Amino acid sequence: MPEWDIERIDTPAVLVDLDVVEANLIRVQARAQARGLALWPHTKTHKSTWLAAKQLDLGAQGLTVAKLGEAEVMRAAGLHTLLIAYPLIGPIKLERMTHLLEHGATVRVALDSREAADTVAEAARRAGTEVGVLIEIDTEYHRVGVPPGEAALPLARYVADQHGPRYQGLFSFAGHMSGNLDEEGRRRILEREATILAQTRDILVRAGLAPEAISLGGTHHSARMEQLGLGTEIRPGTYIYNDRNTVIAGSCDEADCAASVLVTVVSAHETWAVIDGGSKTFTFDQSHLGGFGIVRGWPEIVFERMSEEHGILTWSGRTPLLRVGERLQIIPNHICPVINLHDASYGVRRGQVERIIRTDGRGKVQ
Amino acid sequence: MPEWDIERIDTPAVLVDLDVVEANLIRVQARAQARGLALWPHTKTHKSTWLAAKQLDLGAQGLTVAKLGEAEVMRAAGLHTLLIAYPLIGPIKLERMTHLLEHGATVRVALDSREAADTVAEAARRAGTEVGVLIEIDTEYHRVGVPPGEAALPLARYVADQHGPRYQGLFSFAGHMSGNLDEEGRRRILEREATILAQTRDILVRAGLAPEAISLGGTHHSARMEQLGLGTEIRPGTYIYNDRNTVIAGSCDEADCAASVLVTVVSAHETWAVIDGGSKTFTFDQSHLGGFGIVRGWPEIVFERMSEEHGILTWSGRTPLLRVGERLQIIPNHICPVINLHDASYGVRRGQVERIIRTDGRGKVQ
Repeated sequence: MPEWDIERIDTPAVLVDLDVVEANLIRVQARAQARGLALWPHTKTHKSTWLAAKQLDLGAQGLTVAKLGEAEVMRAAGLHTLLIAYPLIGPIKLERMTHLLEHGATVRVALDSREAADTVAEAARRAGTEVGVLIEIDTEYHRVGVPPGEAALPLARYVADQHGPRYQGLFSFAGHMSGNLDEEGRRRILEREATILAQTRDILVRAGLAPEAISLGGTHHSARMEQLGLGTEIRPGTYIYNDRNTVIAGSCDEADCAASVLVTVVSAHETWAVIDGGSKTFTFDQSHLGGFGIVRGWPEIVFERMSEEHGILTWSGRTPLLRVGERLQIIPNHICPVINLHDASYGVRRGQVERIIRTDGRGKVQ
Repeated sequence: MPEWDIERIDTPAVLVDLDVVEANLIRVQARAQARGLALWPHTKTHKSTWLAAKQLDLGAQGLTVAKLGEAEVMRAAGLHTLLIAYPLIGPIKLERMTHLLEHGATVRVALDSREAADTVAEAARRAGTEVGVLIEIDTEYHRVGVPPGEAALPLARYVADQHGPRYQGLFSFAGHMSGNLDEEGRRRILEREATILAQTRDILVRAGLAPEAISLGGTHHSARMEQLGLGTEIRPGTYIYNDRNTVIAGSCDEADCAASVLVTVVSAHETWAVIDGGSKTFTFDQSHLGGFGIVRGWPEIVFERMSEEHGILTWSGRTPLLRVGERLQIIPNHICPVINLHDASYGVRRGQVERIIRTDGRGKVQ
């Protein structure tokens, strides 16, 4: 593609600074390797096969996906080493999982029920292959996961006793790390998660089910690798782009934010202005500090409210700050669902468009 | 398509009950006609050219769209009579608007600035046609809109004095009708909107700029047509599907909700269960009553929280209510952004899939 100035991009549109992306990918990969942690980047953030391939090229062990549909997209692009971080339930998922395995994918799955284990076992048998299984432990986020300790034993044994699934170890997602916490609060969650997993591991070891892998999420973890204790692998997603919430949580600096939304002021008033992006551009994902994003270059402006296609920027005082036609860049609260709204993003370097990044996995919720 | 039971649909997926859709369309069209109101349905809710054509067949005067990209989708499907309820700003929008006009569209635009009026004027001149213009008045929602009264006069005159734009009248969107209000509060907003528009109209009439059209939104208005006073046309969107928030606002009954999300329980616990839809399926759009939707058939269950791909359902007591593999139907808080997340919905009638409804305008935020 010839050089193309961002002034020629219609709005609203997602811009991705490729210099920042590359720095983020290289930094986290190097830090994981230095600590002997395998990196399984979560592709739910970018949903791009091009960026996933880049993560593998830089040394990632495999790719994490949230849904089977995302796995299918990666597999179709020739990216075969996949961790599906989601229990697969029901006969339609079984058929699709079988198809995925029959078409060259090497898959691991995290799960917390016999029903999900049965899906994996049957798909593996039909495809004549093996599927790695991680037992998801509820480390107090209270989403998916069996209770820790002795309670994890029956499912681990159930999986280990079958042909097809290959018992590999434990999986945890301490999603409450995203809560409204100070750094000490986050440190305590990591400590508690490590304690829970260590106790569960010891019970499994005594039962002859020693875990070879202990898989931990996410970007708040990857920013605190020195506190992870016994993990053997890590699954950050947001770290590739970062966002307002990872900045607020102290998991990155604003300069590490690679993605922003380019918008145009469409209506200007004394105490507010309207931009051409609302919840269908930014989502209603919240921040503990209120507001919906960082308006780059305008620290005094608050992204205060939205409707579907309008964003309302406000400021104090009665002096109009923005004029109709002005273009702004906004870092959203949470980048992952924003990317999922857009068919593509614009990969830019020093103000020039270098590449269109298609959101290949957009909307693959099934 | 042969009959196809909804049991064969993979989850999560949006189901649309076609009997309810048809009843909603026919009822609102009939009520508008009985009151002499032109119906300009807002297509942002369904973003489907098939449903838009159905609305026109039933007597709608034209189609409202939020963004130029949605107008392009409708135009390409042969649906030419369009109201773009959004100011068009900047040179790229000008080029696209010109193209739209050159390819057969008959367009009206709502706007609140000279910049937006200039875009319309220039596109109309280039395409050798006319574009209807409605002056958007801020009726106290404080989004887009010039202040009411005398302040509306200069822009109305600016538009009326040009060739290309054809001054048609006034446009209002009292979005604060969706607020946390009782019926008396909503009545007062409608009354206030009517007063503001009447005063502004009188000023324009005295200035020789009598409005031929006064255009009002939305579903809360269309449910209260007897309170609208001086409107000549109405632009409801959500009424085709309805959702939890239109039920809560008293703008429809639960039986009028045509759209729901089919989900599967993927993890079951004593006091909660996890479904396979989170904010990438439902969005984080809020309700004044808390929670994220109505779980059909389970009034005791609360859709309490979400992450991107997980929904957490809770209940009181310590008796497990749901089992892994169970399928549920959930009416979301706000259906419009939900439809926008999904490439298609399943049009069903009495439990059988009758038609796939493509979300043709999905993601057309530009």
